Amino acid sequence: MPIPRKRHVFYVSDGTGVTAEMLGESLLAQFPDLDYEVVRAPFVDSPQKAGELVSKIERVAQGSGFRPIVFSTLVKPEVLAVIQNGPGLVMDLFGAFIDPLEREFGMESTHTVGRFHGMRDTHSYHRRIEAINFALAHDDGITQDHTLVEADIILIGVSRSGKTPTSLYLAMTYAIKAANYPLIPEDLERMRLPEALRPHREKLFGLTIAPERLAQIRSERRPNSAYADLANCRREIELALELMRREGIPWLDTTTKSIEEIAAVVMLHLEKIRRYQDL
Amino acid sequence: MPIPRKRHVFYVSDGTGVTAEMLGESLLAQFPDLDYEVVRAPFVDSPQKAGELVSKIERVAQGSGFRPIVFSTLVKPEVLAVIQNGPGLVMDLFGAFIDPLEREFGMESTHTVGRFHGMRDTHSYHRRIEAINFALAHDDGITQDHTLVEADIILIGVSRSGKTPTSLYLAMTYAIKAANYPLIPEDLERMRLPEALRPHREKLFGLTIAPERLAQIRSERRPNSAYADLANCRREIELALELMRREGIPWLDTTTKSIEEIAAVVMLHLEKIRRYQDL
Repeated sequence: MPIPRKRHVFYVSDGTGVTAEMLGESLLAQFPDLDYEVVRAPFVDSPQKAGELVSKIERVAQGSGFRPIVFSTLVKPEVLAVIQNGPGLVMDLFGAFIDPLEREFGMESTHTVGRFHGMRDTHSYHRRIEAINFALAHDDGITQDHTLVEADIILIGVSRSGKTPTSLYLAMTYAIKAANYPLIPEDLERMRLPEALRPHREKLFGLTIAPERLAQIRSERRPNSAYADLANCRREIELALELMRREGIPWLDTTTKSIEEIAAVVMLHLEKIRRYQDL
Repeated sequence: MPIPRKRHVFYVSDGTGVTAEMLGESLLAQFPDLDYEVVRAPFVDSPQKAGELVSKIERVAQGSGFRPIVFSTLVKPEVLAVIQNGPGLVMDLFGAFIDPLEREFGMESTHTVGRFHGMRDTHSYHRRIEAINFALAHDDGITQDHTLVEADIILIGVSRSGKTPTSLYLAMTYAIKAANYPLIPEDLERMRLPEALRPHREKLFGLTIAPERLAQIRSERRPNSAYADLANCRREIELALELMRREGIPWLDTTTKSIEEIAAVVMLHLEKIRRYQDL
């Protein structure tokens, strides 16, 4: 049987290639029927390395019978030129936008490699590492009252509602110091916030989840436990929602949301409470 | 004193806006003298929401006297059209590349919102969450021998060489299951790998760091301790390097590298050991 022909997609960058891959994947997600294989080519920072890559692109083109697609964030013109002379269809992510930006700003761009290490507000790399350490040190209620003062946000919710991955993503992407604190059955039965959280009410943000989904997630951890029982999950979530409503805490249903989506909503909320909303 | 005039940059998306922000920040990093403020506008998924955003862009334009820059990953033409009628300079990240891709593939794109939740190999969202849980459960040598079998990679190195943030980033971005295991002074003096790691040698990847930087990082945690002492840091690192050389373990100096860069090198290594390198 012949092997079905596949497209090959190259993510090429002078740096890590994260930006090229992210935009490329966003674009290719618009073609759900496309079958393709990814080749990552980070750190292509000299014409020589670009030459080696072009050889690889040529081999792939011959092997598959398709023109490979090359998403590039190369900034050095002499490196990009080598790739553009190869057989791939080059999507030059920088070239498409640098010219209009130079005209608009009346400045020339520096064509410097690797100036960029992530998202906005993270230029101080140290702050992201600090935020990750903070999230780890304040995961799942591991916390001391006095250090919660440093938190930008405190995520609350029943066990396995998505608090930990969201805290880590907020730290890694936006250098946000996110603590997370579980609402345990004792808190819910008393219908009171845990004592440690009461002085920080304005920083609380709730995550909730559909009981069916929660039972499924908990079952993977502890099958056939009271913890994972659907009726128990339903009751915990109902009580948690009631508590959050009573206390006036904003909350989000995470059931059908990705970490990125939850984090984006938390960021909107943070900007709101920081009064950035009305410029 | 007049407030210095600033550019305003909008990151606009039907989804989270992460892709728009990442590419925008990469481009703007090429203009290091540019002073600008960021406004995030995620979840703009209707002409009405786009209309509200245009009002905001108009207010900003009037206030600053500058044309705002709008980086958009909007996929719905009717939403994008509203923004393009506003006063911003719109960098349409999708529009620039969707047409050539449609022609190349001979397919129409779906113009669907929010199909994309991250990087390659992460379409199964569940795998990323699992990888994050794995990284947390196998952080800093918290591990049981039998579960290391599941690891894609095991990062080793002296305490505070960058293992934890790298493990979490690999999990979150690439759904890679990364354990991390410290090389403690006892291992180093014996010049032997920890017993738990010996069956998994082919998965080991070392991180090292300049002694001066390590002493600085450790001093922030425990000032004036033997742990943070420069001579001690130097000795630990020398021994760790000797151990990794003897055992034939690949390693990377993280001193001047970002998490993204360390992770990109680890990914290259993983693709190499998975024999993806020669297509």
